[in-house]
Amino acid sequence: MTAQIFVTLKKTVLDPQGQTIQRALNSMGHPEIASVRQGKYFEIELTDVDRATAEAAMAKLAEDVLSNPVIEEFRVEITG
Amino acid sequence: MTAQIFVTLKKTVLDPQGQTIQRALNSMGHPEIASVRQGKYFEIELTDVDRATAEAAMAKLAEDVLSNPVIEEFRVEITG
Repeated sequence: MTAQIFVTLKKTVLDPQGQTIQRALNSMGHPEIASVRQGKYFEIELTDVDRATAEAAMAKLAEDVLSNPVIEEFRVEITG
Repeated sequence: MTAQIFVTLKKTVLDPQGQTIQRALNSMGHPEIASVRQGKYFEIELTDVDRATAEAAMAKLAEDVLSNPVIEEFRVEITG
């Protein structure tokens, strides 16, 4: 089973890294890019665990360890 | 329209950051985690562009700018 966890800054939090990437891409001939937000991506392989347990464990992990819930939000997807 | 671009190290490239996260999580009571690979995640808002053009432009962008094709691979998803 594979868990994918995406961690991004909350929409209300300024993302200067994303803004810098956006301006760079705009100046490189991509005027269609209206905004860029950069985040972290974790691909986690799981063994010997059922789907329900994995979903609960990964959501807790994302909240407690992999993200800072004050400024970041996360999304978990379990596949396979 | 939103493009999501995921950039990870190729499977054949050692990911010491991911391994460190994996060992830390194993020691925190998550023996079910067999491997962790960390990557970058870009969420790009697009305006005034059709889907086919966006797909081509984002794939080119991911390859040329957002990833290092020598050691990294990428995946693009367009939604909305």
